[in-house]
Amino acid sequence: MNPHFRPVALAHASRLLNHGPTVLVTSAHGGRRNVMAAAWSMPVEFTPPRIAIVIDKHTFTRELVAASGAFGIVLPGASQVDLTFAVGQSSGREQDKFARHGIAAAAGPVLGLPVIEDGCAAWLECRLIREPHAEDAYDTCFGEVVAAAADARIFADGRWSFRDDNAALQTIHHLGGGEFVRAGGTLRAAQPARAA
Amino acid sequence: MNPHFRPVALAHASRLLNHGPTVLVTSAHGGRRNVMAAAWSMPVEFTPPRIAIVIDKHTFTRELVAASGAFGIVLPGASQVDLTFAVGQSSGREQDKFARHGIAAAAGPVLGLPVIEDGCAAWLECRLIREPHAEDAYDTCFGEVVAAAADARIFADGRWSFRDDNAALQTIHHLGGGEFVRAGGTLRAAQPARAA
Repeated sequence: MNPHFRPVALAHASRLLNHGPTVLVTSAHGGRRNVMAAAWSMPVEFTPPRIAIVIDKHTFTRELVAASGAFGIVLPGASQVDLTFAVGQSSGREQDKFARHGIAAAAGPVLGLPVIEDGCAAWLECRLIREPHAEDAYDTCFGEVVAAAADARIFADGRWSFRDDNAALQTIHHLGGGEFVRAGGTLRAAQPARAA
Repeated sequence: MNPHFRPVALAHASRLLNHGPTVLVTSAHGGRRNVMAAAWSMPVEFTPPRIAIVIDKHTFTRELVAASGAFGIVLPGASQVDLTFAVGQSSGREQDKFARHGIAAAAGPVLGLPVIEDGCAAWLECRLIREPHAEDAYDTCFGEVVAAAADARIFADGRWSFRDDNAALQTIHHLGGGEFVRAGGTLRAAQPARAA
């Protein structure tokens, strides 16, 4: 769909979420599909690549995820703040948010989940790991990443590269109330001295 | 300790972690204490304020957290990237990392956990919610925030404010291998139109 997208090795998948971006969650089941925003997600394991994400039990997304046993994660770029906020403000139960917002989605290669590439930095397809207690008590859904891809202009060979020329693709991080910060301004830590 | 720090209302505590910063985890038990870095954390609930954080079961921190039933979270500012990376590269089992790195820590007001204010944006004290399965299967520890405070120059009245004049306090987000991005460049989303 987007010629800049390249597969990401599963061994590198956790790096896509390591720095805490706000993401879109996609889902599909029985001819219906949805997309919502989620600020609360994190990797939990490198190998196999596993993640945790909070999806409120009252959402239409949660219903589709429970039924299908799968969810997609999309990392919107800085150009997509309006869309990200908008899909987080309405439910997809009554209307298809892809159609409403004119979002072009393709089917992911392994699970067929909706993936979005235009204006986005990366996506992941995840198989839900059933954890009824965590889902119930904390709305926390665990998943195993089974496919991932990224725009090579910002993530290639397992590494992010945030530069002036890819600002529109840089990940966004929701502060609350529609205010986001963009990840940028790379800082390199000094190599720590070995313990004496 | 730092005159700029002010208590954060518990109702606003989740906002401190909403945008996915890399944090320091502090712990103490039986006269010993520790500090490590963690990129993998997220809020899971607003009220009561609860969070999840991944702490490897082989770490000294995990041992102290299990014994004490509590952990602290500190948000290092951009000036603390070297320290953040350094405390993530060595174990506190053999030596006190606070002493080694010259870190000034005070005792948190509710649980007495080590909290760090100099060069940091905020801290939270959390009571561990025992979840043996999640801890064992995913190294995921759930906790309830019982106290929080932030440097008012960057977080006040429940809101972040990332500006040119507080760049040194802006949160950092670990990409991997000692490379971080700084949260900055605030973007405001348009108010979405109401559904037709």
